[in-house]
Amino acid sequence: MGKLFHKGVSKVLCCTMVIVIGCFTKSFASESETSYDFKNGNAVIEVAVPALLPVILSDVSSTAGDATLILRMSTLMSNAWFDASAPYHPTAVGVYSRLGRRPLSESETNTNINIAILYASYRVLSSLLPQRTPVWRKMLTDIGLDPDDDSVDLATPVGIGNAAGLGVVRGRARDGMNQLGDESERAFNPMPYMDYTNYRPINSAYRLFDPSRWQPDLQRKGMGLYKIQQFVTPQYALTEPYSYQAPQRFNMPPPYASNHWNYPAYKQQADEVLAASADLNDERKLKAELFDNKIESLGFSALSTAISRGLSLQETIELDFLISMAAHDAGIVIWQEKRRYDAVRPFSAIRYLYGDEWVSAWGGPGRGTIRLPANQWKSYLEEADHPEYPSASTCFCAAHAQAARRYLGTDVLNWEFSKAAGSSHVEPGITPAEDTILRFDTWTDFVSDCGQSRVWAGVHFQAAVDVSTQMCDVFGDMAHEYLSSLIDGSAPVRRPAKGKRYK
Amino acid sequence: MGKLFHKGVSKVLCCTMVIVIGCFTKSFASESETSYDFKNGNAVIEVAVPALLPVILSDVSSTAGDATLILRMSTLMSNAWFDASAPYHPTAVGVYSRLGRRPLSESETNTNINIAILYASYRVLSSLLPQRTPVWRKMLTDIGLDPDDDSVDLATPVGIGNAAGLGVVRGRARDGMNQLGDESERAFNPMPYMDYTNYRPINSAYRLFDPSRWQPDLQRKGMGLYKIQQFVTPQYALTEPYSYQAPQRFNMPPPYASNHWNYPAYKQQADEVLAASADLNDERKLKAELFDNKIESLGFSALSTAISRGLSLQETIELDFLISMAAHDAGIVIWQEKRRYDAVRPFSAIRYLYGDEWVSAWGGPGRGTIRLPANQWKSYLEEADHPEYPSASTCFCAAHAQAARRYLGTDVLNWEFSKAAGSSHVEPGITPAEDTILRFDTWTDFVSDCGQSRVWAGVHFQAAVDVSTQMCDVFGDMAHEYLSSLIDGSAPVRRPAKGKRYK
Repeated sequence: MGKLFHKGVSKVLCCTMVIVIGCFTKSFASESETSYDFKNGNAVIEVAVPALLPVILSDVSSTAGDATLILRMSTLMSNAWFDASAPYHPTAVGVYSRLGRRPLSESETNTNINIAILYASYRVLSSLLPQRTPVWRKMLTDIGLDPDDDSVDLATPVGIGNAAGLGVVRGRARDGMNQLGDESERAFNPMPYMDYTNYRPINSAYRLFDPSRWQPDLQRKGMGLYKIQQFVTPQYALTEPYSYQAPQRFNMPPPYASNHWNYPAYKQQADEVLAASADLNDERKLKAELFDNKIESLGFSALSTAISRGLSLQETIELDFLISMAAHDAGIVIWQEKRRYDAVRPFSAIRYLYGDEWVSAWGGPGRGTIRLPANQWKSYLEEADHPEYPSASTCFCAAHAQAARRYLGTDVLNWEFSKAAGSSHVEPGITPAEDTILRFDTWTDFVSDCGQSRVWAGVHFQAAVDVSTQMCDVFGDMAHEYLSSLIDGSAPVRRPAKGKRYK
Repeated sequence: MGKLFHKGVSKVLCCTMVIVIGCFTKSFASESETSYDFKNGNAVIEVAVPALLPVILSDVSSTAGDATLILRMSTLMSNAWFDASAPYHPTAVGVYSRLGRRPLSESETNTNINIAILYASYRVLSSLLPQRTPVWRKMLTDIGLDPDDDSVDLATPVGIGNAAGLGVVRGRARDGMNQLGDESERAFNPMPYMDYTNYRPINSAYRLFDPSRWQPDLQRKGMGLYKIQQFVTPQYALTEPYSYQAPQRFNMPPPYASNHWNYPAYKQQADEVLAASADLNDERKLKAELFDNKIESLGFSALSTAISRGLSLQETIELDFLISMAAHDAGIVIWQEKRRYDAVRPFSAIRYLYGDEWVSAWGGPGRGTIRLPANQWKSYLEEADHPEYPSASTCFCAAHAQAARRYLGTDVLNWEFSKAAGSSHVEPGITPAEDTILRFDTWTDFVSDCGQSRVWAGVHFQAAVDVSTQMCDVFGDMAHEYLSSLIDGSAPVRRPAKGKRYK
């Protein structure tokens, strides 16, 4: 049985990856033809995630690299799954709802939990991306569920799912992220997730006034449009964490070498980035792309672990909520520190230091390592829309890994991620030269490569990676402690989250 | 015969519209099952345009509103079709190639012209959007043509098509638009279509230093990313026109009312925009959306005319190249004037004038006309990435209409464009309340609504519309004169285009 389950879910995960690369029309069509196996299925992996992924790529982040938005979605979704499945657990309680307890006979198969988590998903998704409501409705109707069933009868899985989903929606609507877009006393034409903290960059895309500080980059979007970056959701720093109270406790030391008055250190860390760029190879390029993509790196490593260890549906939900929450809560501190230090990215520092002097580095897609003027150098990946220090990706990986270690009781990971020849997004048709399997034996390896890949990619200095590697395990620990208190039922009742300014 | 042709092509045009709204996978699949009717088909409408449209929406402009890039694609494509079909015409010569003349027997059916224009399309598309080469290859292989056939044997349609396409590619590669991305002595990491003229906005997205001048807007992209506008292709002003020599001849008067020192006029034109916003109705909203979409308004009005008048394949090509060239060449002068005056958009002027004072206007999707603080007002459409004056859309429509009038010998248009209830992109599910047919009896009506729709949409002042309405017919006339000289064979041989700075 365990083996069959493993096989079936593997197929779906593979299908999920196919969806990611685009041919989701067919996939949905074939789903609607079959009736869903509620009894043995895992609707997280087989229904909810496949419905969500294409919309994340089309509406949220085309590279799956905009972590603050993606983590919000994955955390609220998995929170809703957890809360919806809690009544079917012997002791667990929800984060944002207390829905009673169902007789154990109702969780002998996956049927009730699957139904509950799908209704919970529907409520959360309709709140997070209301313009895609037709997609969320289809997610239910394709497998015979009725999206218009808004029962909150807690004796039924539909009612439990709806109540759990609505609880999360209410619980997080005003958590500080400005999901409703009406902060700053904005009553008309809401601007969801818009900064309401009045962040202003010191530098402009056209001029570097202060070489220590962040400079928005001018980035190409498609064939010929160029857009200037805006710090994405600076208010994430004010958002209420799940697993601890005060982000202020977690200060990180200032980025000494990013201060251009410390010239030798400033130059040295920039030179390290150029050296890493010159030293790129296929494996490093692929790892850079993998860890930039939060769905593939964070999402698939967790789902794949759930599958390979044969986790039950409830365990899959617990693990997924745990690792999402760990990264989500880690991000709050990271954004606090990013805003505090507002640190320069490598591209600005390298232009400032070297101008049109020639340097050795990666020379652009398909060009390999060459000599080129420093101000024509590009990092292998585009920088995300936020200041450099500390590295968010590294911190997410560290928190995620530590959470997984705590839950699974081991550092062993044994995750393989395969990339076909030429499947790189940066160097399509060229990289990798041969079919390649990226292998991560342990979570420690995963974190190490995740962090280092940000330097290889040219978007971070070493210090930003090191500080996140050293300081972010704690978010995995705290998330695990909070999850444990939810599972054993000792977690206190929780009021709807409030952004810091509202306290 | 004429009637059958009409019917068949109508079906394809309808299919094209279906493609625009997304389900292109199926459509391509069904095409590949049938063998293509080269003899009677019209490969412009049935093959090339359907292959191109989805890529324009995914890679070039998601709203089909970024005119400078779209016009470049449509003009170079139709130029290639014209040059590829010229040898099959009794007298015509190509713009960028002189490929001899084929016996009339070779153009008794559409077969040779269809083959020639598809190879020409393939060469141009592979140059304009090389990253989509697999799509362009599939366009050929789906109907049994071999993309690897790079013959330039001018006794064959394949050779003629390849030679014509390559001629256009060479002819326009350095026309000033920076397609290769290597202007400003940029030898590495090319930035295609990047400004190389050093345009810098006076205002920032955060602060209006000069209320007369253009302010880049901060716009939401998807769920929660915000990006700051960058003036799109300011170098369009330096690009070589097809149909005249010196853009400097076509100066437009300064936008008096956009100068905030002329306060009463400045206030009055802003008040007019607010009044138009308050006066929106379903018809105006739909027209605003129609004319913002350059594929639907410019492209479909021309193709639909070709179909309804039963134009032959060669006539369809002539008309399409003519109207594309007219708008393309008009845009060069418009960009020259936009850059010269760098004029403020309504959103900035209205915020400057009224701050948080309450005004009456459209209140956002589904809100109708309400009272709201001026600095929370939004225009019905997002502004495109360029200064306000003069109106580019109006000038494109005027040049397009005049070109069509000259070619067809009449102002009569009789074009209907139907929109299903709730099909608005701005107010989906709400607007229009009922299925609606937008009807344009004459090209004069078309231009009038096109221009006025920019004020209804809140993105232009009246003066910018009026000046374009008055001054842009000439671009239709000049394009028609140049086309006539190409058709009768009197046009001089032309060297590859050069941007102005290279002269």
